[in-house]
Amino acid sequence: MKIEIKPLKVYLLGLMVVLGTLLSCQTKTETKTDTETIPVSKPIAAADPLPSWNNGKTKKAIMDYVEEVTNENSERFIPKVDRIATFDNDGTLWSEKPIYFQFFFAIDRVKAMAADHPEWKNKQPFKAVLENDMPTLMKQGEKGLLEIIMATHAGVSTDEFEAIVKDWIATAQHPEKKKPYTDLVYQPMLELLNYLRMNDFKTFIVSGGGIEFMRPWAEEVYGIPKNQVIGSSIQTQYFYNDGKPIIKRLAKIDLIDDKEGKPVGINRYIGRKPVFAGGNSDGDLQMLRWTDANEYKSFKLYVHHTDSIREWSYDRKSPVGTFDKALDEANEKGWTIASMKDDWKVIYPYEVK
Amino acid sequence: MKIEIKPLKVYLLGLMVVLGTLLSCQTKTETKTDTETIPVSKPIAAADPLPSWNNGKTKKAIMDYVEEVTNENSERFIPKVDRIATFDNDGTLWSEKPIYFQFFFAIDRVKAMAADHPEWKNKQPFKAVLENDMPTLMKQGEKGLLEIIMATHAGVSTDEFEAIVKDWIATAQHPEKKKPYTDLVYQPMLELLNYLRMNDFKTFIVSGGGIEFMRPWAEEVYGIPKNQVIGSSIQTQYFYNDGKPIIKRLAKIDLIDDKEGKPVGINRYIGRKPVFAGGNSDGDLQMLRWTDANEYKSFKLYVHHTDSIREWSYDRKSPVGTFDKALDEANEKGWTIASMKDDWKVIYPYEVK
Repeated sequence: MKIEIKPLKVYLLGLMVVLGTLLSCQTKTETKTDTETIPVSKPIAAADPLPSWNNGKTKKAIMDYVEEVTNENSERFIPKVDRIATFDNDGTLWSEKPIYFQFFFAIDRVKAMAADHPEWKNKQPFKAVLENDMPTLMKQGEKGLLEIIMATHAGVSTDEFEAIVKDWIATAQHPEKKKPYTDLVYQPMLELLNYLRMNDFKTFIVSGGGIEFMRPWAEEVYGIPKNQVIGSSIQTQYFYNDGKPIIKRLAKIDLIDDKEGKPVGINRYIGRKPVFAGGNSDGDLQMLRWTDANEYKSFKLYVHHTDSIREWSYDRKSPVGTFDKALDEANEKGWTIASMKDDWKVIYPYEVK
Repeated sequence: MKIEIKPLKVYLLGLMVVLGTLLSCQTKTETKTDTETIPVSKPIAAADPLPSWNNGKTKKAIMDYVEEVTNENSERFIPKVDRIATFDNDGTLWSEKPIYFQFFFAIDRVKAMAADHPEWKNKQPFKAVLENDMPTLMKQGEKGLLEIIMATHAGVSTDEFEAIVKDWIATAQHPEKKKPYTDLVYQPMLELLNYLRMNDFKTFIVSGGGIEFMRPWAEEVYGIPKNQVIGSSIQTQYFYNDGKPIIKRLAKIDLIDDKEGKPVGINRYIGRKPVFAGGNSDGDLQMLRWTDANEYKSFKLYVHHTDSIREWSYDRKSPVGTFDKALDEANEKGWTIASMKDDWKVIYPYEVK
């Protein structure tokens, strides 16, 4: 388990820090039965495949790259089969403040499951969650957080878990934005995904978030098929009883698809290095280095959260989406850094006029 | 590791039994520098997408199914995104006699690596391999076999391993057929893969064989992209030294993608149940049951090795590709069984006139 322990610790420790902001901002999620349909992207003007990107060097760099590597007469031409584009999810394709949205899911699950677990009233870390008692929850540490994840993500079949996620994502709302979480995807990134696919790139999500938390809705929201959604995972086991096969989710870590785990996940699921990768934090640095090692000309994109009005502004010192070491390396190596404030006309699809 | 131990034992024990036939039939592989290009399939007549299948109930069942589920006016219509087709490799897409071809690779690797491992001359199980000493090799048991696999498949980077496999597959020859291994794929199955893709099915390999043993050549041979090739795997670890990222292959089992491991692999890599699955042995039974559990109408295909003249004839008692319990279940449940002798006009692409 050597490969997993380090990223897992980093991941969980990071979460413990940010959990501090969690319960204070938690509000009751409202039930909404008529799910809004989120378009994969707004119609694209023929003249401009990236209409929500301001004209400037970032947009130009992206389009110059795509035009160069898809031009058969270019020395930098990349065959279609090698046009692999990988994107982080939290903070790159959708927001991640005040905490990774999957943690609102976990907290909501503890509360929803509490009736079937009367013992949780007196058992940590669940007691603290149920009582919104942050100081006590913090004292449970990494072990307590892992207990919450496993209690809310394991123990059910894969089919059951998918139904639970679908129900939650259709009804839950972001505590500050008062919108469904899937409304909080970035319009410019939806356009970028589409633009790459129009140019025969295969788009993948490579996220620290749970693979089976993302797959139930990523297809519709991002236009990325389930088998191209890569994330952290727990182990599973196949059972066959009374002629019925099921796969159960076990309370054991499989892959932590963050930091060093991202190239490992890319190798496992894709089997070739990306030529285009997008991220927003230090957790994506290894993926971008892996992309940079491609023999084909590659494009490394960092989304910088610079917009305190329309989204959130944070980087080096933020416990969620820490962008520090990677910000230095991106600058040193001349990777592209998109400023949300300066490069994006709108942030969310619902802002498009 | 509970989920992996059982399939691993079954897999290795099966291999130990068949290893008996290995060294007796081994011949020196010849070097061939000009790799032949293997067409994904012969051109398909507009009137008949499966020209190498004899007209009969098997071919009709396949085509009736595809026509029904792709007809938007049918009650059995399946949306494109759910058209997942999974195929075993050994014995389903290419031959597997006298032993899984990957084992010829492992044996060849032991011999190729022997110069760098002078200690192997006096160390089992390598000594037995180098001396073609079958009785002694058999006595090394499961542990010895695992040692051979790990010594030949781990310890190098993923890039290095890919180059080794590419070199071997381009030069090695089957000991009896005297052909490159990639010539020994089944022409009717190439046509079936193409036919499904023409009807917007996404085709996957789900094999007990090594994922990184298949990916270097499956794309060209089967027209299946690397990220749709699923197989058994070992763990990997990411390293970053002197500004260069590499992924190393570790001597630790990750997934044994056989029997109970096949639905687990399908869930991990694809995230939805197949609607079409093809196999040839008891090792595929769990995959076909998983497919049969799909809410959409599904198609379960077994390839039965009935042709002792053109290929090999074996089923219930064969240690490679044992087709016993699954043969009974396929008959009971009315799954489709293709007889190589009766249903296939030709076996290999080079036989097509």
